[in-house]
Amino acid sequence: MSQAFIQLAIDCISAEKSLAIVEACKDYVDIIEIGTPCLKVNGASLLEQILAIVGAKPVLVDTKTMDAGFYEVDPFYTLGASICTVLGAAGETTIQGVVSAAQKHGKQSQVDLINCTNKQAIAELACQTGASIIGIHTGIDAQQHGETPFADLQRISSLKLKTMISVAGGINKHTAPRAIELGADIVVVGGAITGADNPRQAARDLYQAIR
Amino acid sequence: MSQAFIQLAIDCISAEKSLAIVEACKDYVDIIEIGTPCLKVNGASLLEQILAIVGAKPVLVDTKTMDAGFYEVDPFYTLGASICTVLGAAGETTIQGVVSAAQKHGKQSQVDLINCTNKQAIAELACQTGASIIGIHTGIDAQQHGETPFADLQRISSLKLKTMISVAGGINKHTAPRAIELGADIVVVGGAITGADNPRQAARDLYQAIR
Repeated sequence: MSQAFIQLAIDCISAEKSLAIVEACKDYVDIIEIGTPCLKVNGASLLEQILAIVGAKPVLVDTKTMDAGFYEVDPFYTLGASICTVLGAAGETTIQGVVSAAQKHGKQSQVDLINCTNKQAIAELACQTGASIIGIHTGIDAQQHGETPFADLQRISSLKLKTMISVAGGINKHTAPRAIELGADIVVVGGAITGADNPRQAARDLYQAIR
Repeated sequence: MSQAFIQLAIDCISAEKSLAIVEACKDYVDIIEIGTPCLKVNGASLLEQILAIVGAKPVLVDTKTMDAGFYEVDPFYTLGASICTVLGAAGETTIQGVVSAAQKHGKQSQVDLINCTNKQAIAELACQTGASIIGIHTGIDAQQHGETPFADLQRISSLKLKTMISVAGGINKHTAPRAIELGADIVVVGGAITGADNPRQAARDLYQAIR
């Protein structure tokens, strides 16, 4: 099993709880993600607070940008975000805008395939555009219907594109090894850590399961 | 020409500038919209600041929700938002979540058809789900390619659904009357007001053009 990065998705709303989880888990994860609901409630100030805790560790801001690509993410790169995300559903111009903003700052961009009907075409477009990461993502609402990201992960991974692949959607210490075997370069874990009685222990368990 | 509501879209990033524009223009608009880039940078505190200025005037928070429908918008309704938006591209479960959150609070929900390929089907789904408003929306990035919302507006309006119709995408005092003739119940104006040398004058001009 090859090495993969662990991304901790902060999926709560409370800034105080978010910061406590980051502080508790930072030693066992490689990337901190500010989840979309958390971002919209707390704004960019939470990014600054998290950067103050994690120092040089990369922070992904899950902007899920749908329009005004460059304009929307540029402020986050300016503040120190390492990765912003754009929806595959947004279309080419918006994807290009986010990629351009990332490149301007020497940072990375991620195209999120959540709910895209034409995932392969969007993944190939993302790669051509210069995106750094393709996100295979089964959303929280889709997980309610029993959906998982594994089939999409296998399909997109088999394309052997030159972008990294991130996988998100109910990943835990039991399923992360399989995600990595199927080609994930980054495994995103949210509720399995943030919803645990002891988030630090849960992050360490995940770390030990795949390192 | 029937009466339509005027929605002012705050499309800047600066909270200070946003609040100044709201203060200057509030007498001539019916709904204040916190635009998506502005929301992501400033968070929910800007909603509270705007509500303190506009009192009972409705505020739309352009969440453009793509996942975790209920969870993401519930905090904004709790704080006093009158309308939150969900992407048509998000799919049925997420749309239902946003509609449910609105109904829980006795407020309204809007389904944004931006970049949907199957706009008619999504509009009908939105209506069945109980959404209050369908948003016909040509994004800022699509406007760069000369796209306008008028053809979609005409098509969706002709369906005679029982939701209201909002139209956004480069609308100004010259095009607002046409949008209303084509069936818009709400005309959304951003840059034509926020980018004007005198936003208050621009808002008054728009008001006089359609009232």
